[in-house]
Amino acid sequence: MRVNPPTITSSEAPALAPVRFETSPAAYKHWTFEVEGGIARLGMRVSENDGLREGYELKLNSYDLSVDIELADVVQRLRYEHPGVRVLVIESMVPRIFCAGANINMLGGSTHAFKVNFCKFTNETRLYLEAMSAECGIRTVASLNGTCAGGGYELAMACDEIILQDDGNTAVSLPEVPLLAVLPGTGGLTRLVDKRKVRRDLADVFSTVAEGIKGRRAEEWNLVDKVVPSSRFREYVTDRAAELGEGEGPRGRTPTADGVSIEPLAGEYTDEGVTHRHVALTFEGRVGTITVQAPKQGPPADAAAARANPNDLWFWRMARELDDVLLDLRFNRPEVGTLLVKTEGDASQVLAWDAFIAEHEGSDWFVHEMLCAYKRCCKRLDLTARSLFALIEPGSCFSGSLFELTLACDRSYMLDDPDHPIQIELSAMNRGPLPMSNGLTRLQTRFLGSPETLEAALAHEGPWDSRAAEEAGVVTISPDDIDWDDEVRIAIEERASLSPDALTGMEANLRFAGPETLETKIFGRLSAWQNWIFQRPNAVGEQGALTLYGRPERPVFNWSRT
Amino acid sequence: MRVNPPTITSSEAPALAPVRFETSPAAYKHWTFEVEGGIARLGMRVSENDGLREGYELKLNSYDLSVDIELADVVQRLRYEHPGVRVLVIESMVPRIFCAGANINMLGGSTHAFKVNFCKFTNETRLYLEAMSAECGIRTVASLNGTCAGGGYELAMACDEIILQDDGNTAVSLPEVPLLAVLPGTGGLTRLVDKRKVRRDLADVFSTVAEGIKGRRAEEWNLVDKVVPSSRFREYVTDRAAELGEGEGPRGRTPTADGVSIEPLAGEYTDEGVTHRHVALTFEGRVGTITVQAPKQGPPADAAAARANPNDLWFWRMARELDDVLLDLRFNRPEVGTLLVKTEGDASQVLAWDAFIAEHEGSDWFVHEMLCAYKRCCKRLDLTARSLFALIEPGSCFSGSLFELTLACDRSYMLDDPDHPIQIELSAMNRGPLPMSNGLTRLQTRFLGSPETLEAALAHEGPWDSRAAEEAGVVTISPDDIDWDDEVRIAIEERASLSPDALTGMEANLRFAGPETLETKIFGRLSAWQNWIFQRPNAVGEQGALTLYGRPERPVFNWSRT
Repeated sequence: MRVNPPTITSSEAPALAPVRFETSPAAYKHWTFEVEGGIARLGMRVSENDGLREGYELKLNSYDLSVDIELADVVQRLRYEHPGVRVLVIESMVPRIFCAGANINMLGGSTHAFKVNFCKFTNETRLYLEAMSAECGIRTVASLNGTCAGGGYELAMACDEIILQDDGNTAVSLPEVPLLAVLPGTGGLTRLVDKRKVRRDLADVFSTVAEGIKGRRAEEWNLVDKVVPSSRFREYVTDRAAELGEGEGPRGRTPTADGVSIEPLAGEYTDEGVTHRHVALTFEGRVGTITVQAPKQGPPADAAAARANPNDLWFWRMARELDDVLLDLRFNRPEVGTLLVKTEGDASQVLAWDAFIAEHEGSDWFVHEMLCAYKRCCKRLDLTARSLFALIEPGSCFSGSLFELTLACDRSYMLDDPDHPIQIELSAMNRGPLPMSNGLTRLQTRFLGSPETLEAALAHEGPWDSRAAEEAGVVTISPDDIDWDDEVRIAIEERASLSPDALTGMEANLRFAGPETLETKIFGRLSAWQNWIFQRPNAVGEQGALTLYGRPERPVFNWSRT
Repeated sequence: MRVNPPTITSSEAPALAPVRFETSPAAYKHWTFEVEGGIARLGMRVSENDGLREGYELKLNSYDLSVDIELADVVQRLRYEHPGVRVLVIESMVPRIFCAGANINMLGGSTHAFKVNFCKFTNETRLYLEAMSAECGIRTVASLNGTCAGGGYELAMACDEIILQDDGNTAVSLPEVPLLAVLPGTGGLTRLVDKRKVRRDLADVFSTVAEGIKGRRAEEWNLVDKVVPSSRFREYVTDRAAELGEGEGPRGRTPTADGVSIEPLAGEYTDEGVTHRHVALTFEGRVGTITVQAPKQGPPADAAAARANPNDLWFWRMARELDDVLLDLRFNRPEVGTLLVKTEGDASQVLAWDAFIAEHEGSDWFVHEMLCAYKRCCKRLDLTARSLFALIEPGSCFSGSLFELTLACDRSYMLDDPDHPIQIELSAMNRGPLPMSNGLTRLQTRFLGSPETLEAALAHEGPWDSRAAEEAGVVTISPDDIDWDDEVRIAIEERASLSPDALTGMEANLRFAGPETLETKIFGRLSAWQNWIFQRPNAVGEQGALTLYGRPERPVFNWSRT
């Protein structure tokens, strides 16, 4: 292919050590975690000198990506390893400070692309807290016994309840606009008016007052759920957690349920790509290929059997591996702009797995967890700012849950070759349990303009061959074997020749038609504005507020309003 | 106040002649307009050398702001001056080209702020076409007998129907991404998947194929509504227009209804501000003040009396003047970042006018038009990227329709002085007929989190004084006379000291809580991504695609994906 080699031509892409996203409690540097009865307590105690990169200190419980990677890990482990837990309390282990938000020096020294991807990952992690509450019934409480600023308050807003200590000092704040000339972009502005539904003029005042709001006014404005005097604070939080934790969780999440340990994936990471057991990432120039293997064998006999050897289960492992590969791509392969998605193996095994998941996810918490892991992974694919083309070729197995991958793609190409027939087939996984951020399934979003086509596709029994798939509208095009090579090659070459920025903006607008949700607002509207501001001289120029933060000089603004 | 003087410190704000937005058919340079029976025909014939600025030629029916100012004017005049019209056909008077979109050399030579405000105005004008159809029942048909590219196709998509000539040559296209490395940002991507509901993978293909799609495929993909052979094209369009124009319009829009002529506002524009009869704009440093005067006398006796002397009617004139002032502010006063909104006069006259509008708008087309003019104006205020503070002082008249202005503001301050009592009062205008872009009223949006507060406010009879207004939540704060001066002064000074960019992003996120619509998606999501891309070196850098368009050099991209 005539696309450029992956040499680093970008001044924005300094050669940094790759970021790895797997971790485990034994390796945590920034969080304490303990479980007692149905209550888990997560303590933030950021280790100042253990950031991801050199050049900044994580003072005052400020965070960088390394802190968030651990947070994402602990949320996953809580879901799998502690099915008896009913409530998560997030608190600080540092006196008088809950969390000061994202580290400013880290942000100031980061490339634009890193800032954007860092914010996307932290946004996903905040949403995972909300998903855990919605999907597992694990309620989350932010216990604010110290100042909670910026990203710290954004973390608190991702919890179900916020309890604030009334000590005359502890405040919540979003000082990004007044101090840094950027936005509270990790969902902050959106959650303020769309989740907590703070009145817009009060939200306006709050978002411009650097010192924040404390005490009773914070409760009156609904910035927090409860303000409690210092003397009763710890007791109140404990009592409230116990109250929230009454009763059993859904799908067998009982106090006596045994957890499932998450073992390392042990993938191989090289300059040439990533190799996991079922998922691989390879490159040719600026074009990457993700290949997902079908299971070699069918699902376990029942849910109990699934839990007996969980880390070898195809469905769960595949979802975890794919998720890991997407993160590797986002952070470590900035120049790979076009991603081909392929599958290999026996589609009937995929469909057998789907039937197993569909049968047990309503009654068994662990099977439901596997489903949720794949749901998150598909959403991460939707939100990955790379052009996604599915190639449906002989030997592929794009049925059921793996068919969702083609639906997440910007386009799908299915070879029409009578000598090498290919089939795709829907399963229960395409009919509801894997919604996008907009709350619709990918098929619903695809056929927004044609409900009758959606109905026909859902009612179709058995597989489609290539021509039928194109006619049904479930793939973009099915070139014949004479046209295939040229058609696909030219499409990839053309895509790889276009401006990466224009494609990112275009895909962000075309992928999410239909209804809007908190999630789509955060990724589509708030993040887009933040990305804009992250480019503005008033923030990141030599005299910009983000650049000069912590230094004696005052920022100098260009006063022209846009 | 200690805010900077309005000297031009910005390298982005060259001293250009101010833009004026009033025009009239006799002055049109770019459009022909004729009415025959119930059918109006608007012909695009852009005059190449009559652009707003020097330095570019408006070839191939490409447009700049001057073309759009005329389009906005003709849409207004159609509503008022031709109440018998049932259908508007938009066509080209230039052979083989419908419209080539926004002029690239104009865009390439514009400041970032101008590009953003130009796109916002063109977006508003496209939405006015849709509003005309929804509100007046005037159906719109894009008659494409020549190539229709970029902004040209975005204009077509704002019409109810698109008819495409099938001559083997005429295509519709969105070449922004492949040719210019920017987005189809005048609603294009949003209307593609959210209005026309083109399948997302087909939309992806379409938006990356510079030459576009023609013939039957354009109809199959729903890019157009009908493809008609050249030999039958003119006849088909005429017949279809006649078909769409059958029957009478709403609220007395009959073939014999007399129109209402729009006369010039004849405002005074100086470096110190704008003076209209009822609305004035003044400045002190970077802080502007809009003052709206209440009517000096009550409404006419009935709708017929209103039409007898329309250009002196307070409600309509005030709406037109306020709209004009907002456009002046956006384009001609870039450094005015904070806008104080004040009113003066007799609130009972405002409420009398509101009662008149409420009584007749359901039955009389012209009274309904006055209401719609104010609805558009309030939306334009919502979408104005300036910080808006309402100051409710003695002598003000912020009741009913004028109370909407405070609700559009980011904050409202109401003096609480027993010696100079102030009252505000709701009217029917606050209860439904003036929705925001999100489809809710401003009161509904304000009280999203507290339906009972909304109910109480709507059920409240008679006026509120200052304390009661603050308690009811309908104003932000009511400082007493001792605190007022300092409170307001400090608030304004603080606001004027913050980064204009951060404020623009913050306000765009806080103002529009709740549901999303085509409008909010266009202004919140698509525009934000476009603004981001308008800053990216891949588009606007020395080697960017927008910069180099039409020159022999090929753009050079930084391939890093964000």
